[in-house]
Amino acid sequence: MKALVSLVGAGLGDPDLLTLKALRRLREADLVLFDALVSPEVVALAPGARRFCVGKRAGRPGVAQETINRLLVRAARRGQRVVRLKCGDPYLLGRGGEEALALAAAGVPFETVPGVSAALAAPALAGIPVTHRGLSSAVLVVSGHAEAAWRGPLEGLRPGSVTVVVLMGLAARAAVASLLMERGWPGDTPSAVLWAASTPRAALWNGALAALGSASPPASCRDAPGTLVVGKVVSLGHALAWGAGAEAQASGDEADIAGRRTT
Amino acid sequence: MKALVSLVGAGLGDPDLLTLKALRRLREADLVLFDALVSPEVVALAPGARRFCVGKRAGRPGVAQETINRLLVRAARRGQRVVRLKCGDPYLLGRGGEEALALAAAGVPFETVPGVSAALAAPALAGIPVTHRGLSSAVLVVSGHAEAAWRGPLEGLRPGSVTVVVLMGLAARAAVASLLMERGWPGDTPSAVLWAASTPRAALWNGALAALGSASPPASCRDAPGTLVVGKVVSLGHALAWGAGAEAQASGDEADIAGRRTT
Repeated sequence: MKALVSLVGAGLGDPDLLTLKALRRLREADLVLFDALVSPEVVALAPGARRFCVGKRAGRPGVAQETINRLLVRAARRGQRVVRLKCGDPYLLGRGGEEALALAAAGVPFETVPGVSAALAAPALAGIPVTHRGLSSAVLVVSGHAEAAWRGPLEGLRPGSVTVVVLMGLAARAAVASLLMERGWPGDTPSAVLWAASTPRAALWNGALAALGSASPPASCRDAPGTLVVGKVVSLGHALAWGAGAEAQASGDEADIAGRRTT
Repeated sequence: MKALVSLVGAGLGDPDLLTLKALRRLREADLVLFDALVSPEVVALAPGARRFCVGKRAGRPGVAQETINRLLVRAARRGQRVVRLKCGDPYLLGRGGEEALALAAAGVPFETVPGVSAALAAPALAGIPVTHRGLSSAVLVVSGHAEAAWRGPLEGLRPGSVTVVVLMGLAARAAVASLLMERGWPGDTPSAVLWAASTPRAALWNGALAALGSASPPASCRDAPGTLVVGKVVSLGHALAWGAGAEAQASGDEADIAGRRTT
């Protein structure tokens, strides 16, 4: 097989949400560079590859982006099959574009393998469709990583006109809620925080926008990224997580109803 | 196996973009109800099931939503494994929430299997990351199906503050471009229309927002849904589709560089 760098979306955590193509690329890989939040079960699907975590982990700094780019280019030039494994989808708030530009500049063959993003799937697994006839016909996905990333996109939104999803949003929850309410979003807009969706420790906080700032993770999710969802669609979660609960019982799954692991 | 209705995301068209769980559910299914735009290769992955297209096709009307709901409930009550196969992700502009509510109301066990959505993956396969450091930190996904669906969400956006993706957007392209420019988006904002992403007949139009209204599909894509993308990130498509082209050559793939089928 010829040299190739694949920027692969690893999905949410449950290996069952990988795409068929992602699985094949992992099985063929000589080298896998993965982010710290990619689940160990997914990384284990490439037993024949050298595997390195290049993300921040347990307080240690991650590998610099330029170093990652250099490792990818060098391995491809040696003729290797390389997988750059990223949480969710590589091109949604994942810096995949930067790595792709570096590969293109170096003349290295590469491809993108889209993945299931937490932006849509974390709400879905908790019974929250991000759009729903009569409630919302649009969804805005934004990074909560830095205020400069979310303030501009959120400021102009017509109150209630879209479902807002904030990835990596936990630290920004109070500031995001304040901004939206200043801009006219009702304080009783249904809101949720989702942690560790698709994994056995998945958890959900559910409440009004005005209370979003006080949402806090259960002890088991202290280090898990939190996804915020704001909009009327969140109110469907009660009915649909009930259905999901029925399914979980029917199939003997004991995982949390709120944000179940797929089985 | 116990009765279960699975609302399954079929991805974009290329079966390789199905999730592992979606494939398993198809293989186990007794009954599959699929939308007209789901690719035949994906439907073929459930050879043991009775399979029915319930969407609009070749001018014939689709099956009414209430009828679909009734079929799902009845099959589950007979103890069957049912897959409701929907394009992209069932909970993003796919009416999956309505079907889930009907199943919950009937007390039928169900689950949602998230899929890869064209909203993110169609641009990605054309070399366009929907977010990119310094260009965009947010993406708004909206339906182009009816003006009432997109006008409200688009009206308030700060010009250039987010990447706009319009699914089923072809008919609305001129009106969407007009609205954005009225609201202050520069006429030279990079824009694209993507057809049949991930399939062999994938095609791409690329140009300025002011010219978006005149974008028209190649003959091979007359009946394919068009995805609009507006924002500075579209300008990356040239560099990244080049890289993708290198990959396509390296792996012997002869498909269109602009929006390649995964191989």
